[in-house]
Amino acid sequence: MPTELSRSDLRRQVASLLVVRGSGHWSDSQRRYPRWELTNAHLQRLLTDGVGGVILLGGSAAELRLRTDALQSWAPQPLLICADVEEGVGQRFEGTSWLVPPLALGRLHGQDPDRAVQLARQYGQCTGRQARRLGLNWVLGPVCDVNNNPANPVINVRAWGEDPACAGALAAAFVQGCQAEGVLACAKHFPGHGDTSSDSHLELPVLPHSRERLEAVELPPFRQAIAAGVASVMTAHLQLPALDTEQPATLSAPVLNQLLRRHLGFNGLVVTDALVMEAISRHHGPADAAVLAFTAGADLILMPADADAAIDGLVAAVEAGLISRQRLNQSLERRQRALASTQSAPASAQEALDGLVSTEEQQLARELVVLSLEHQRQPEPRGALPTSASGVNLIRLDTQLNCPQLPAMAPALLRPAAAGYETCLIDGRSPSPWSGDALAPLALHRLPQGPVLLQLFVRGNPFRGSAGGDEPWPAVVQQLLAAGRLAGLAVYGSPYVWQQLQPLLPAEIPAGYSPGQMPLAQALLLEQLGLEAAALEGGFTD
Amino acid sequence: MPTELSRSDLRRQVASLLVVRGSGHWSDSQRRYPRWELTNAHLQRLLTDGVGGVILLGGSAAELRLRTDALQSWAPQPLLICADVEEGVGQRFEGTSWLVPPLALGRLHGQDPDRAVQLARQYGQCTGRQARRLGLNWVLGPVCDVNNNPANPVINVRAWGEDPACAGALAAAFVQGCQAEGVLACAKHFPGHGDTSSDSHLELPVLPHSRERLEAVELPPFRQAIAAGVASVMTAHLQLPALDTEQPATLSAPVLNQLLRRHLGFNGLVVTDALVMEAISRHHGPADAAVLAFTAGADLILMPADADAAIDGLVAAVEAGLISRQRLNQSLERRQRALASTQSAPASAQEALDGLVSTEEQQLARELVVLSLEHQRQPEPRGALPTSASGVNLIRLDTQLNCPQLPAMAPALLRPAAAGYETCLIDGRSPSPWSGDALAPLALHRLPQGPVLLQLFVRGNPFRGSAGGDEPWPAVVQQLLAAGRLAGLAVYGSPYVWQQLQPLLPAEIPAGYSPGQMPLAQALLLEQLGLEAAALEGGFTD
Repeated sequence: MPTELSRSDLRRQVASLLVVRGSGHWSDSQRRYPRWELTNAHLQRLLTDGVGGVILLGGSAAELRLRTDALQSWAPQPLLICADVEEGVGQRFEGTSWLVPPLALGRLHGQDPDRAVQLARQYGQCTGRQARRLGLNWVLGPVCDVNNNPANPVINVRAWGEDPACAGALAAAFVQGCQAEGVLACAKHFPGHGDTSSDSHLELPVLPHSRERLEAVELPPFRQAIAAGVASVMTAHLQLPALDTEQPATLSAPVLNQLLRRHLGFNGLVVTDALVMEAISRHHGPADAAVLAFTAGADLILMPADADAAIDGLVAAVEAGLISRQRLNQSLERRQRALASTQSAPASAQEALDGLVSTEEQQLARELVVLSLEHQRQPEPRGALPTSASGVNLIRLDTQLNCPQLPAMAPALLRPAAAGYETCLIDGRSPSPWSGDALAPLALHRLPQGPVLLQLFVRGNPFRGSAGGDEPWPAVVQQLLAAGRLAGLAVYGSPYVWQQLQPLLPAEIPAGYSPGQMPLAQALLLEQLGLEAAALEGGFTD
Repeated sequence: MPTELSRSDLRRQVASLLVVRGSGHWSDSQRRYPRWELTNAHLQRLLTDGVGGVILLGGSAAELRLRTDALQSWAPQPLLICADVEEGVGQRFEGTSWLVPPLALGRLHGQDPDRAVQLARQYGQCTGRQARRLGLNWVLGPVCDVNNNPANPVINVRAWGEDPACAGALAAAFVQGCQAEGVLACAKHFPGHGDTSSDSHLELPVLPHSRERLEAVELPPFRQAIAAGVASVMTAHLQLPALDTEQPATLSAPVLNQLLRRHLGFNGLVVTDALVMEAISRHHGPADAAVLAFTAGADLILMPADADAAIDGLVAAVEAGLISRQRLNQSLERRQRALASTQSAPASAQEALDGLVSTEEQQLARELVVLSLEHQRQPEPRGALPTSASGVNLIRLDTQLNCPQLPAMAPALLRPAAAGYETCLIDGRSPSPWSGDALAPLALHRLPQGPVLLQLFVRGNPFRGSAGGDEPWPAVVQQLLAAGRLAGLAVYGSPYVWQQLQPLLPAEIPAGYSPGQMPLAQALLLEQLGLEAAALEGGFTD
């Protein structure tokens, strides 16, 4: 029997392997997802008890910096603080660089692989440098999944490539750039989430591939990231019957201990994807899930549904000999080693925030947008959008509420307005814009009169369960063309939607695509369509 | 001729009387209104040149605190830093107390004047205490306008009362509460903006009242605020032919020097309303406007369209003898005196933010909502909203983009969803929800099926040009009643819209009104209608 002292030591050791979720905002009332984001009192108690990691979402750069300082001050040990900043820190924390999604570089890689690899490294460096300054020492990227299934609702443009070689080369470059800044990277979602058409946030996808196929397609990017020295690998909530007929990858010893550790030789940190996700939590309680993941080979337990239960479960498993002390020490040592390789942020918040976005990073953000823009436009004057048009600026979004893409002064709103287009916004909660007629699906009489500039913000996103391909945009484009009312088209996000629509367009219709949805992408794309900066706009370069 | 040295001194002195606009956000790219909010480089240069005041909008509490620290560090002198926080600091800066609009207390004042006055004092104290902790030393409130015109598009629920005695008593109590916390208050908009039906943000309203009428209605609240020791008074961009046939109040010596200074005996700071507003900027350049306001009796120049031009104009006017050195010194002394009466924030941001919202303030916010709620509901089970309804939660907003009332987990979204109501959101940029039929104006076939819970977020707001009374909600209520499809009604904001609709409702329809639009008001109102807290909600108590 362990003594009381050693049990309390054991509890603290086990707790240090948990990563719990908090808000990047300062106060409890600001939490956007109170079901998942712990209150400050709860966080403070868990950190005091020895919990060793926090994942944060939401808040501005300045707020995040104060927040990470406070979290570290609540903990008796240095924390791992991470965030899902796959597309630049600005994807999640306002006031930093929001970069085009990785797949933009995958597409460039086909034409100019060296340039793409160099940019992916800069992309990682930009993300790592800004993360470190804000007190994040662990970036939950790169996605190493190969997006070879355009219907994938959850990976999509988050992947670095549509084939293994491209995805691997770019992900490895990201790892090198990020980790050179003293911030850990994380290759995910092992062993590969690219070829699924369901969302593991909502259900457990099954990947029916053979071991050979995995070797050929799914594994190479992880091998490359590991060769590049990636500090951590995140598991996927995926069923792979070829490897394990019972457990999903996250809980599978054949996947983690055999494939990842032995076969791929990875000796860094293995972290689960969030255990609160339905694919796991529907089948296992928080203690069971943590113990199963740990015994399968994970070191760190991300977002257990109940942190105390997970700690209790792991302590009991160690005490019962299900988990050996040696195995526990391995994970603790890996965590220490990873922490030791990180660099600290500047001590003062003011210092960290001054020059947070460097001139080079502003240029990088712009260059990435410019390089990934596609457009078709005839020579002037044909092909530029008609201005003074008395038309409609019809914008399609996932949701208008809390939409960082569209601040009040967004180019997608202001520039068409300045040219005479009245804004009409539709999302899943608008009064229906649909007529019910498959050949003319848009109920035009519910919109303002005149030519229609169609702007589609559409891409795969976790929890949406769809990559946006289920709305009848091809038929709408044909309907508007037939009515002589298509003024222009802008697609932001999914290359697959653009690939569907672009062939339908006569050459004289001004149209373009950007993988990015941020204001900077809107500004540069609309400029190509002939809409110059509007008077009320600001700068969008960081 | 002044020497070079004295001219540069003069420039700095004049500059100290300007209040320029910045964003409460840290970085330039986060500015929501880049046309009006200066860049950091521009701000830093102006503050170095001696500009003495900044007005801020936007950002969270934590971000604001870092921001005010930075602004003070850029200036060689202590700054006046102000914000339009009329409804609690949380109205503009997330993570602090967002209180019901003042008119809620005006309505309570009719039933229980002592309680209302006591609450108005606490309201001021809550605002002042939180403002100070975040580095704001000047609150641009209370509104002293008497909202005796329900069609007023810009004052509306921002006023403390619909009659002079009530507005004056509550505004004075707010002043005492706020200034007891070491933060300056500001009575506005002198000599009274309550009886206008146009918005001075968009045009110059004319107030045709006689001097006697002004003495009876408009002036008493200002007298009471002055008697309570209010540190500053803000001018209105209003034409008052009875006092000045040429200039609007902001630029009028009869209004400022004669009426406010001599007749009302006010010797604190007189600040203009923003000079960039159309009512002024359409008629005067930035130098002219500043000189006219100053010679009319203003001490501080708020948001000149061009700060350097305003400084140049004022310097030239002093040098030309149009403004005497004595007059200039008076304003400088008033500014110094006001600054000397303010108290500093805790030196460390962490300290200031810990316990930023006290338990008493959380209780105050809740009490204000509870006291101002109105609802009609029959005893159980009749009168509670039908649940498991397969109905529609039809929400009317000014705009869904950047809508702080409706975070993703807002009760107005989540509670009806949990009870089976599908959300449908409409605003001025939705596909039209209107049928064109005056007797049945809502195009019901464009909405989901089933009973309709109608939630109207409607109130007067600057720049909207309307108090929301121009949509056919009475006819919609009658249409839904006739169709047997009105499940319930919630009105958030305007008492006038509620007063229009409430008489149309049969007693069995669950319905209610809150002057507040914030999540806490939604939660408490919907609770009255029978919708309990949904699983995903967080706390809304600060």
